[in-house]
Amino acid sequence: MRLRHKPWAKEKLMEYPQFVVQTPEKYKGKWGELFNNDHPIHIEVGTGKGQFIVGMAKANPEINYIGIEMQDSVIVSALDKLIDEELTNIKLLNIDGSNLSDLFAKGDIERVYLNFSDPWPKKKHAKRRLTYKSFLKLYEGLLIDGGEIHFKTDNQGLFEYSLQSFSEYGLLLKYISLDLHNSEFEDNIMTEYEEKFSAKGQRIYRCEVKYQNEANN
Amino acid sequence: MRLRHKPWAKEKLMEYPQFVVQTPEKYKGKWGELFNNDHPIHIEVGTGKGQFIVGMAKANPEINYIGIEMQDSVIVSALDKLIDEELTNIKLLNIDGSNLSDLFAKGDIERVYLNFSDPWPKKKHAKRRLTYKSFLKLYEGLLIDGGEIHFKTDNQGLFEYSLQSFSEYGLLLKYISLDLHNSEFEDNIMTEYEEKFSAKGQRIYRCEVKYQNEANN
Repeated sequence: MRLRHKPWAKEKLMEYPQFVVQTPEKYKGKWGELFNNDHPIHIEVGTGKGQFIVGMAKANPEINYIGIEMQDSVIVSALDKLIDEELTNIKLLNIDGSNLSDLFAKGDIERVYLNFSDPWPKKKHAKRRLTYKSFLKLYEGLLIDGGEIHFKTDNQGLFEYSLQSFSEYGLLLKYISLDLHNSEFEDNIMTEYEEKFSAKGQRIYRCEVKYQNEANN
Repeated sequence: MRLRHKPWAKEKLMEYPQFVVQTPEKYKGKWGELFNNDHPIHIEVGTGKGQFIVGMAKANPEINYIGIEMQDSVIVSALDKLIDEELTNIKLLNIDGSNLSDLFAKGDIERVYLNFSDPWPKKKHAKRRLTYKSFLKLYEGLLIDGGEIHFKTDNQGLFEYSLQSFSEYGLLLKYISLDLHNSEFEDNIMTEYEEKFSAKGQRIYRCEVKYQNEANN
């Protein structure tokens, strides 16, 4: 995504602590306190401008959502969407996804969404892909037993790589679509990026994978 | 594949016992006797007119190949290719693939090829797909430990289904291509069907999966 520098973004994010959690560390192991309920928590790593997670939060009031995005000039657009809505089941975190284990204890999270993550196409950058084994281990450390990753991308190479990485890690492939917008999958909520690229006829790939007790990790 | 009835096919297949094994049962557990060597054996289930397996046999003289096809009016075209060549590392079997366990003992086979298998698109016919769990169990009963299935298809639905079926059975996804003919995969040998459909711009999907000791079966 091309980033427009927004020098005022950081300040704006701090002006809305009811939407952008300022000290997330203190909720580790007790996120229910923040949401005032014990509903399951789904996170999106790389939430961008927030269209997906805000749409999910509207559609599923019985789930709590946390959108995580390290680029302040991007997540500020997600904040704008929250200011316009009256949603109590969604929060934003302006942090780097690799720090997740400081903020969430094992079992805090039921599901991780990865949408249109950076493909890092060069082999030497494979470790930076959000479906690389070190990230799968990171998510496992936050998820409930049997927790899931739901993954969408338009990048064929990243999808091929990710299916292999999931398999190697011992995850169960529950659902695969090789052409999401021409599939039977209902209730798809599009990201901004997905809208733009699928309109050009680009295929969208999607899968759901589940951590198993037998996972060899 | 549209089948042209060839009433003479059965008879012709019996006229060439050096290519079409007439009593395969007697080689169970000792196929090396037939090939006069102990090279690894790769089989293709649903070998059709034989372009793939004959091409593989030519390219890999250190591997023994067995092409299996139940339609006599189709496999007779594979026989014609063998009559034209001087290949000692390939045999044909005119049998139904579901009888494989009568002919092969555990460890007889190193690799199973499935190319453009019938997709059986209706859910009620899922059991007939050659990647259904009962077939994965059948192949496991013939393969060496760590044996592999190499699978190609142009059918998106069958590929999606098969990846899930492989994963559910506990197989390791080693290699996946979602567009084989635009991939880095070298040495692809095309089937007749593949040539025809890829020429029309149809994508070809391919994967390699491996049986693991930890397979939950």
